[in-house]
Amino acid sequence: MSIKGVETRTRILREALGQVSKIGFEGLTLGPLADQLGLSKSGLFAHFGSREELQLAVLQLAAEDFRREVLEPAVHQSPRGLRRLLAILKRWFNRYPEGGCVFLAGSAEYDDRPGAMRDALADFHLQWRSALATALRQCQQLGELEPEVDVDQVAFELFAIAAGGHHDYRLYGKQAGGRVKAAVERLLRSCGAAPEKLIWK
Amino acid sequence: MSIKGVETRTRILREALGQVSKIGFEGLTLGPLADQLGLSKSGLFAHFGSREELQLAVLQLAAEDFRREVLEPAVHQSPRGLRRLLAILKRWFNRYPEGGCVFLAGSAEYDDRPGAMRDALADFHLQWRSALATALRQCQQLGELEPEVDVDQVAFELFAIAAGGHHDYRLYGKQAGGRVKAAVERLLRSCGAAPEKLIWK
Repeated sequence: MSIKGVETRTRILREALGQVSKIGFEGLTLGPLADQLGLSKSGLFAHFGSREELQLAVLQLAAEDFRREVLEPAVHQSPRGLRRLLAILKRWFNRYPEGGCVFLAGSAEYDDRPGAMRDALADFHLQWRSALATALRQCQQLGELEPEVDVDQVAFELFAIAAGGHHDYRLYGKQAGGRVKAAVERLLRSCGAAPEKLIWK
Repeated sequence: MSIKGVETRTRILREALGQVSKIGFEGLTLGPLADQLGLSKSGLFAHFGSREELQLAVLQLAAEDFRREVLEPAVHQSPRGLRRLLAILKRWFNRYPEGGCVFLAGSAEYDDRPGAMRDALADFHLQWRSALATALRQCQQLGELEPEVDVDQVAFELFAIAAGGHHDYRLYGKQAGGRVKAAVERLLRSCGAAPEKLIWK
């Protein structure tokens, strides 16, 4: 693939991701997308053989963005344990006021449509749940959370708080932020976290 | 309105609600709906002047179903306190394996579209949150939950567990049920509920 080909592919994916966050994966249509980018429809098809191929590539780009903007900086900037966990959560939740979450919206679009998109979304959420469980396990290893706590259960509960918070952000605005933080603090205290360690930086 | 008019209106709304739980409120189209019911499009318009009017009436029917199937039996069959609260939650969560929740799906459809549907959904969720807060307050009055607990916060957290559980039910199936129950039990224990009172009947 030529440099120009890579550039065009990236430009298509960025524009498509921008559209998906407004109108959903199923709202994506190749004709209008090509027009918007000043490409012919066949020029766009040269990069993505089908609409589903494009949707999958957009989801992958969104997952890379998420990893780069949420997980990586928290891991690099915060030491293992509750500080890192809270840094991850803060970066995660801070994305919501900026726009709808394509992973939650995507689940709602595809949960009743078997196929590659549904599989890819189910996989994304499992991977994210597993990253959260790892961060929780590191807290246990440092003695910051009780060792008997089921980290997969707590990872589900953190996801649930995020899903509920996302819903409320979108419907009721900023007040959801306080609810989300209080919910996380209660959850982590119930897992043995010392209140003085629960500081959002 | 004649008896026959009431019957037809009910038949339209039931069919429309069935469709909405599969394809969403925005998937509803008057032409195909009229065909399905053996009505003319103008016959359907005689009952609902616009698509939005129909959508609002469908949402109202769904809210009545929800109240009748979730809240009312729990209130009638279970005494105030944790028993009633758990009965409400069980009936609520038991709806999820049967199909997608039109209230959660509706929020996702309308959270970025100002208008009567968004307002009606925001209102539904607030009313349900307020009913949960009342059930929690009754637990406090009976000494089953600590008096200093913020019931509106706990109502948000119960909603979040439901939203996360709904997501996981739809994507991963039945295993979500165990996660949801464990999450509720942890939440209520952290509010002072005695473990032996946390029995799902």
